[in-house]
Amino acid sequence: MRVTAYAAPAAGQPLALTTIERRDVGPNDVLIEIQYAGICHSDIHTVNGDWGPQPFPVVPGHEIVGVVAEVGSAATKHRVGDRVGVGCMVNSCGECANCRNGDEQYCLQGMVGTYAGTDRDGSTTQGGYSTHVVVDADYVLSVPAGLDPAAAAPLLCAGITTYSPLRHWGAGPGKQVAVVGLGGLGHMGVKLAHAMGAEVTVLSQSLKKQEDGLRLGATHYSATSDPDTFTQLAGRFDLIVNTVSAPIDVDAYLSLLAVGGTLVNVGAPAEPLSLNVMSLIGGRRSYAGSMIGGIAQTQEMLDFCAEHGIGAEVEVISADRINDAYARVLASDVRYRFVIDTATLG
Amino acid sequence: MRVTAYAAPAAGQPLALTTIERRDVGPNDVLIEIQYAGICHSDIHTVNGDWGPQPFPVVPGHEIVGVVAEVGSAATKHRVGDRVGVGCMVNSCGECANCRNGDEQYCLQGMVGTYAGTDRDGSTTQGGYSTHVVVDADYVLSVPAGLDPAAAAPLLCAGITTYSPLRHWGAGPGKQVAVVGLGGLGHMGVKLAHAMGAEVTVLSQSLKKQEDGLRLGATHYSATSDPDTFTQLAGRFDLIVNTVSAPIDVDAYLSLLAVGGTLVNVGAPAEPLSLNVMSLIGGRRSYAGSMIGGIAQTQEMLDFCAEHGIGAEVEVISADRINDAYARVLASDVRYRFVIDTATLG
Repeated sequence: MRVTAYAAPAAGQPLALTTIERRDVGPNDVLIEIQYAGICHSDIHTVNGDWGPQPFPVVPGHEIVGVVAEVGSAATKHRVGDRVGVGCMVNSCGECANCRNGDEQYCLQGMVGTYAGTDRDGSTTQGGYSTHVVVDADYVLSVPAGLDPAAAAPLLCAGITTYSPLRHWGAGPGKQVAVVGLGGLGHMGVKLAHAMGAEVTVLSQSLKKQEDGLRLGATHYSATSDPDTFTQLAGRFDLIVNTVSAPIDVDAYLSLLAVGGTLVNVGAPAEPLSLNVMSLIGGRRSYAGSMIGGIAQTQEMLDFCAEHGIGAEVEVISADRINDAYARVLASDVRYRFVIDTATLG
Repeated sequence: MRVTAYAAPAAGQPLALTTIERRDVGPNDVLIEIQYAGICHSDIHTVNGDWGPQPFPVVPGHEIVGVVAEVGSAATKHRVGDRVGVGCMVNSCGECANCRNGDEQYCLQGMVGTYAGTDRDGSTTQGGYSTHVVVDADYVLSVPAGLDPAAAAPLLCAGITTYSPLRHWGAGPGKQVAVVGLGGLGHMGVKLAHAMGAEVTVLSQSLKKQEDGLRLGATHYSATSDPDTFTQLAGRFDLIVNTVSAPIDVDAYLSLLAVGGTLVNVGAPAEPLSLNVMSLIGGRRSYAGSMIGGIAQTQEMLDFCAEHGIGAEVEVISADRINDAYARVLASDVRYRFVIDTATLG
């Protein structure tokens, strides 16, 4: 089955309209007619070659919402017409300790990424900037009726990436949570942590987006470019979720944690970071990392968002504006996620 | 009250017999006739000036066991003749969130160290290489009758330093725990983790102490000088307690953790360490630190040790051998803790 898609033909080149092959719908597969695909910063890193060589042409997109168009003979979880979503992974071994534990993202054989990945049958995966995709039903999420489909697309990556550490490290009533960076991930972190009942502080380079931050659910907003921030907030937080991929002064952020607190990175800077072990020992503090979330937790997150009326703040664009959108993401000129209306791919 | 003690007169100079002043027994104080004082590597760092200028003369010693000789008018917790212990701290503010939470070691005003510290009345504290010490009763532990007093002394630092992270990060049945380094702290870590029901692996530079490690409670013993160790044990541990203060390859040790595992340092290298954030993100891993333990948890640890028949492996020495013992500690020639018989101070 040949379908229309936007693909990067080579590293650093603009994306262009093309057609790609999708596999036949197997017994456990679901064919999805895509409606919306979010633009994640990872898409740009990948097609720019920042993360090494890629199997070009690459169709990015791992924040996918659509409608089931066909189901395989053995796939019972979804029905034709259901609104569904696909996130950052489309397969894993299903048998290792981590997969059995619902942590498919940490599959010991390696999870299969939604694009530029090698699927278990050896084929190269292609993502959501496309009209259709065929995905193993076990990796397809149900998108609750209450969610706006365009605003739901970014939940599949930006949502679960922040939801998972917030849940794992116990964000909730009585907890002081900070979110570092108010971008695609950060704005979801603020909404989710607030909905979980935590008191939320945004730590952003400047106060430029302060009004937004407070509107999205933060109670406090501080500029990290102001050294006083680190004095005034010393020892305050139970949990800090750092959504910024650029290197940070780890010791400075650890100093903001209360005893037993955790600083968790959801983005990875390319360079190694340095830290003084006393920053950890001096308050039983932890520096941790977290990567998206398992399938069951992703479904839990979607249900939580429906219950709390949470979606991403999105700017819906037509497919011919993808390259402009990339430039604007790199210039931090988006509040807070571009979502492609894939009906415009035609 | 003037008492006999062994003190370092200046940085790097041998310790020598002297007398020092102890304060009068106040209403909340306990006068302890010291019987045993362990020699901790920290003692050596401090008197050598490795940790900055010190208020010389310094009487080291924060692994103290003795008998109550006098109690203040308002001190009700201990009675004359009770066997008691004193660890690394002898005071704290008692009022901050951490003190109220039983984490006096993380007192926001700073805990008062047992020696070379500034007490709340402005005086300089002096440690356990001495015949007597006066300590606020709230910082004096009960040493259960079942414990050998010489073997109990190192529990007050080496014991609680390893017990606290093992408890905090859930060492117990079904858990894979590694202890890095088989020295004063490490040998206690092995005994305690084993008694808690965890399956214990020692990670030591060589296999030199393998027989000891297995006898103390480890099921496995691997040499970190052998690169195969890091391949074979990849992803194995729920918890790694690193008792080595020298810098380590953090990424290599993080790679030994299962999903959700924690590497916790109980010693702090002087230099900053470097790590690749992907080592954390790739398995929801944490790098943490822990410093001794609170007073209530220290008592819990002593009771646990009495219940399980656990003491340190000690070599009891007379006071005139302190300087020799320091040289042997620096040469790693002790299995596993020197303890001074303070009756020989006379």
